[in-house]
Amino acid sequence: MNACVLYSGGKDSSIMAVILQKLEYKVELVTVNFGILPSWKAAAQSAKNLGFTHKILEADENILQEGVDMILGDGFPNNGLNYIHQQMLQIAAENYSIIADGTRRDDRIPKLNQDTIRSFEDSKNIEYINLAGFGHKTINKLSKKLFNVKKELTNINNNSDYEIEIRYLIDQLRGDETASRIFPEHVQSRVIGWREK
Amino acid sequence: MNACVLYSGGKDSSIMAVILQKLEYKVELVTVNFGILPSWKAAAQSAKNLGFTHKILEADENILQEGVDMILGDGFPNNGLNYIHQQMLQIAAENYSIIADGTRRDDRIPKLNQDTIRSFEDSKNIEYINLAGFGHKTINKLSKKLFNVKKELTNINNNSDYEIEIRYLIDQLRGDETASRIFPEHVQSRVIGWREK
Repeated sequence: MNACVLYSGGKDSSIMAVILQKLEYKVELVTVNFGILPSWKAAAQSAKNLGFTHKILEADENILQEGVDMILGDGFPNNGLNYIHQQMLQIAAENYSIIADGTRRDDRIPKLNQDTIRSFEDSKNIEYINLAGFGHKTINKLSKKLFNVKKELTNINNNSDYEIEIRYLIDQLRGDETASRIFPEHVQSRVIGWREK
Repeated sequence: MNACVLYSGGKDSSIMAVILQKLEYKVELVTVNFGILPSWKAAAQSAKNLGFTHKILEADENILQEGVDMILGDGFPNNGLNYIHQQMLQIAAENYSIIADGTRRDDRIPKLNQDTIRSFEDSKNIEYINLAGFGHKTINKLSKKLFNVKKELTNINNNSDYEIEIRYLIDQLRGDETASRIFPEHVQSRVIGWREK
């Protein structure tokens, strides 16, 4: 069974990938890109270092634009990020019957609610899997046990989240501090390989 | 890391156990018993057939009694089952720092909400893990892939859920059809071993 994991190179989506691989799914790590910046490269490197197949999901820039419009209208990223993530899941469902992401129990965005998940599974005849059974304490410990992780301030070279292209587009549109206000600088954990035992 | 999986012998808690074992936790399957009926035996057999360590969590009959009082007062099992399950998690937390159960995404009872989970983890300094990232479609397919499963009407010899001792206690207290009304007869899946490849 081929399973697509929407993949950022972070610990959450990496752990999701590991669990599915251990359950003998044929896992493909898929990183979304809207063609604005090659922000998929960090994720591709993480995937390669872990030995997973990696693919780029080239998505229509209009979806990014619509998400950014929502974010700028709202002044906060939640709805726009959820919109983009749901669109990406829909696109992934055109090529995979099993679609996973690294959403964990205590994540707030992007996150699908129960009704959206049921509707997604039924309308596309797919299975959706995430890490909602695992909280941050467990994820952090598992990540330490499994991976070699690098913590650093997010930038275009180390992060493959939607955020990178969103920020870039906002900077282009606004040319001011809007992107930094909506997405404050933060430290992220990037998986750079298996932990040596 | 020793992890306790509250275990009924069904496919959900069996899959939870397999995932944790594959993530290299030292898994112990733990079945609750209130000393009224030896309903733990079916789960012990499933655990043995899968090669897991199995233990019985001998719990105070008063907790069962309180749960049954709630169920009889309500006329439906939800609150009483949730009460009993939460009490069992609390007791498990006295001996384990990682506690899991087979609650999946589309389960309704027993199920902890986010706030209860956070409070449980923080107050007891434990990690709680479940199958909330997996829906019934995925669980059913995984179960078929992994296990030899027997489907049969629930009875005392094939089921180790709380339900069995609850029903028995209700029968003792009421001696009528109350237990059958609250817990209608249903088919369950019992894991009887690994699927031969």
